[in-house]
Amino acid sequence: MDRQHRDHDREDAEDAEDAVIQQPTVGEAVEQPAASTESDQDPGGTQSSHRLLAYSDALISIIATVMILPVAHTKMEEDEEFKQSVRLLLTTKIAVYLMTFLIVTMAWAAHIRLFQLIVRIDDCVALLNLACMMLITFLPYTFSLMAAFPANVLGILLFCGCVMVLGVLQSLIVLYAFSRPFLLDRHVQESENREFYKHHILKVLLRVPLMCLFASILSLVLFQLSYVLLAVVIFLPYVSQSVTWCRSKVLGPPEETPDSAMFHVPSEPLSKERVEAFSDGVYAIVATLLILDICEDNVPDAAVVQKRFGGSLVAALQVYGPEYLAYFGSFATVGLLWFVHHSLFLHVTKATRLMGLMNMLSLACVGGLPLAYQLTQRFPPDSRNELEAVQTSCVIVFFAGVFQLAIWVVALHSERETLQPGVRYGGREHVFMLAKLALYPCVALGTFFLTCVLGRFSVSIFHLVQILVPFAFLLLRLLVRLLLALLPHFYRSPGVPFNPLDA
Amino acid sequence: MDRQHRDHDREDAEDAEDAVIQQPTVGEAVEQPAASTESDQDPGGTQSSHRLLAYSDALISIIATVMILPVAHTKMEEDEEFKQSVRLLLTTKIAVYLMTFLIVTMAWAAHIRLFQLIVRIDDCVALLNLACMMLITFLPYTFSLMAAFPANVLGILLFCGCVMVLGVLQSLIVLYAFSRPFLLDRHVQESENREFYKHHILKVLLRVPLMCLFASILSLVLFQLSYVLLAVVIFLPYVSQSVTWCRSKVLGPPEETPDSAMFHVPSEPLSKERVEAFSDGVYAIVATLLILDICEDNVPDAAVVQKRFGGSLVAALQVYGPEYLAYFGSFATVGLLWFVHHSLFLHVTKATRLMGLMNMLSLACVGGLPLAYQLTQRFPPDSRNELEAVQTSCVIVFFAGVFQLAIWVVALHSERETLQPGVRYGGREHVFMLAKLALYPCVALGTFFLTCVLGRFSVSIFHLVQILVPFAFLLLRLLVRLLLALLPHFYRSPGVPFNPLDA
Repeated sequence: MDRQHRDHDREDAEDAEDAVIQQPTVGEAVEQPAASTESDQDPGGTQSSHRLLAYSDALISIIATVMILPVAHTKMEEDEEFKQSVRLLLTTKIAVYLMTFLIVTMAWAAHIRLFQLIVRIDDCVALLNLACMMLITFLPYTFSLMAAFPANVLGILLFCGCVMVLGVLQSLIVLYAFSRPFLLDRHVQESENREFYKHHILKVLLRVPLMCLFASILSLVLFQLSYVLLAVVIFLPYVSQSVTWCRSKVLGPPEETPDSAMFHVPSEPLSKERVEAFSDGVYAIVATLLILDICEDNVPDAAVVQKRFGGSLVAALQVYGPEYLAYFGSFATVGLLWFVHHSLFLHVTKATRLMGLMNMLSLACVGGLPLAYQLTQRFPPDSRNELEAVQTSCVIVFFAGVFQLAIWVVALHSERETLQPGVRYGGREHVFMLAKLALYPCVALGTFFLTCVLGRFSVSIFHLVQILVPFAFLLLRLLVRLLLALLPHFYRSPGVPFNPLDA
Repeated sequence: MDRQHRDHDREDAEDAEDAVIQQPTVGEAVEQPAASTESDQDPGGTQSSHRLLAYSDALISIIATVMILPVAHTKMEEDEEFKQSVRLLLTTKIAVYLMTFLIVTMAWAAHIRLFQLIVRIDDCVALLNLACMMLITFLPYTFSLMAAFPANVLGILLFCGCVMVLGVLQSLIVLYAFSRPFLLDRHVQESENREFYKHHILKVLLRVPLMCLFASILSLVLFQLSYVLLAVVIFLPYVSQSVTWCRSKVLGPPEETPDSAMFHVPSEPLSKERVEAFSDGVYAIVATLLILDICEDNVPDAAVVQKRFGGSLVAALQVYGPEYLAYFGSFATVGLLWFVHHSLFLHVTKATRLMGLMNMLSLACVGGLPLAYQLTQRFPPDSRNELEAVQTSCVIVFFAGVFQLAIWVVALHSERETLQPGVRYGGREHVFMLAKLALYPCVALGTFFLTCVLGRFSVSIFHLVQILVPFAFLLLRLLVRLLLALLPHFYRSPGVPFNPLDA
């Protein structure tokens, strides 16, 4: 392919040298995916990586949320105590779901890092990337095997095997890309010590697979230790990141050489576009999880309708009534949480890692929502189960909203780098954005305490809230102005002159 | 919100008038989603529509493929004749799947048309759009009710009700957007007869809901007639489009007034980016359909493993062996078909409606792939069932590939408007693209006839092909050059000088 690249058709207006020079930097490549359709396809078969990354994000977001399905489909007896079944769920399946989410997210982070370096692709990179995706989509299954049979080494071996092959494939992509430098980020391409970059990225990518190799060898001797090693692998990045962050707060930002700066910046910005694409995927899957079940299971059998309901389809469908309600409720809640996320990220210019972590935690909560909504409809009215199911839903919505709020708080902490001027402290949109972010946590908290007091009406309260919240969002600008008019001296930013009536 | 728009903070650098002038046209808004993060958020809360459309595309693509789940999960007895169960599937569930795909696709086309006119959004449009999405995601269920109980009017009424409410919501969006012209496409915004555009788009959007209103009234009198009406509604666009196309071929392009040109161009280009986003969603969901099942169902129970397999997890998992194979096979095939689609759309500059239709048909075939692959692994070796399952898979892959090829043929038909110069007849990449597109249909056809002749080895042949195809794609450039070297005079475009060794 390299020879073709050199021997290309001279009659064509653009040639390879131009393509290399015109090649966009990381930021541009991601931010202007299709600004010029002409530049999508350079001679020699190199292409913009935009659509490959969008497809990868879609696949990874589906896989991250997939382990919620076994949780959602756990059979629960009507007469069984809800609390007990929740405990059963909590101990195993929910833990598996959250851990899988974390692991897949890690794989996604490695993928981002790799394609921040490789900004253009050709067919070979695209195909190798598809092979990587296949392995990533298999990870949740190996992990659930590990969780179901903790004493059996097969789960660990399969999991570690997948991670190691993944490492080998990603290393192949790196080696291939460095042998064709026109695929690389311009900064690296023009750098004198390209070899340094190559070794550094290989070191970063192979760290986890090497740990997995040790873990799989260890598992043959003493499998308990290999679990400890895997836990270290999973949590190490977060621990080391927090330590670095704390140190930078205490000692000031560390001095860095220009070359290592690219990899070692503690709050290395994630690609905002990829965070958005991944989040969109998760929100879309989660919003439709319940309708998938409804389409599959809730079309009654003609014979059953004839026999049990005297041919009345309406009567037969009334049995499923609660499930439709659960669907509409969860779709609306997930949709509105997406809406808040969307509004927030419109104001964000750059996503730091801590913001990425908060986003992941929020998304993990969102993944549990359909399950919670389904539970609220499953129990007989006025039972303790019902009350607890409603309260569980409130708690999940509360945390999903609170982590979104946390993204904003983290962003405000370094607002000059991360936020648009308009939403910084005292900016025009600041109060409005705060109101949007605070609405769901406040409503969830309010509903929770109301149901504690008025336990008998818990479901009615819950439904009423579900109906009112979308209107609250629709009228939020009005409500904020009303609130600011009522409390004129409550919110004033110190530095910038700010007129609440203009908000 | 309009008053806020006028009363905005004068201290801010950009103001509303600037925003209106700077506002991009349709093409630019879609093609440069995040070119300038600053312009994402204009004063008064208007935003770029890019992410809203991406989220909508993700939701609609999930919903389009959802009805394949009831098909895939149909229980089949091992001893039952495969042909009979296939017939059972073909008559009902597959028909429901294909019709749902078509209906959801229509709703998606209307959504594209609406947001070609409205290029910027604010919170109100975003929330109304989410309500539309909720209704669209409910359509497949109402349609499957209609299919399960054809003699009951409830299905028709629910379906028509959804479509009508959808029409009302979309009209609300249009009315809202026309009352805030800064949300509109610049061309419409600056046009003198904006009212004409408003009435035209309302007429287009309300045509189908009005037909549904008639159908629902008719269903109370004579429900058979309302089905005829619904069928007309669904197929009319395609029929009228083909008629217009044929007429334009015979009589030449029709004369058009400049104003009606925007809506009436027979091969009105679809937004290329949205076709890509929708296709990505479908490919991603379909590629992961089988792993969703595996994660949910194929983690064996510890007690069962102890009892039936003497505690050997490996033995227990061997039962599921065929399902893993089916997963890897279908993931690879869907992934490679995505790869071909990706390569094709890199060369496409503009998607016509006919190309959109071919794309939909290809995607509908892709949706059936996981099912077909699952079937190939379900029957005892050397049975007639197994042979037929393998052949069904080949047929589906063949059609998925042929419709992709059809997109290209249609694009070549008007290559000056739709294709990059490099891939047009005689272009440098032409042969290579043809080879990519032809690989799957040829392989599928070859496998089909091989299994006819060597029925006993059908599964071995099938697995061998699955393993070889990815390598064929990897080595395709080499293979094409080899083929052209062997047949030096076989492929030469008449006009443009073309050297196959440079391809």
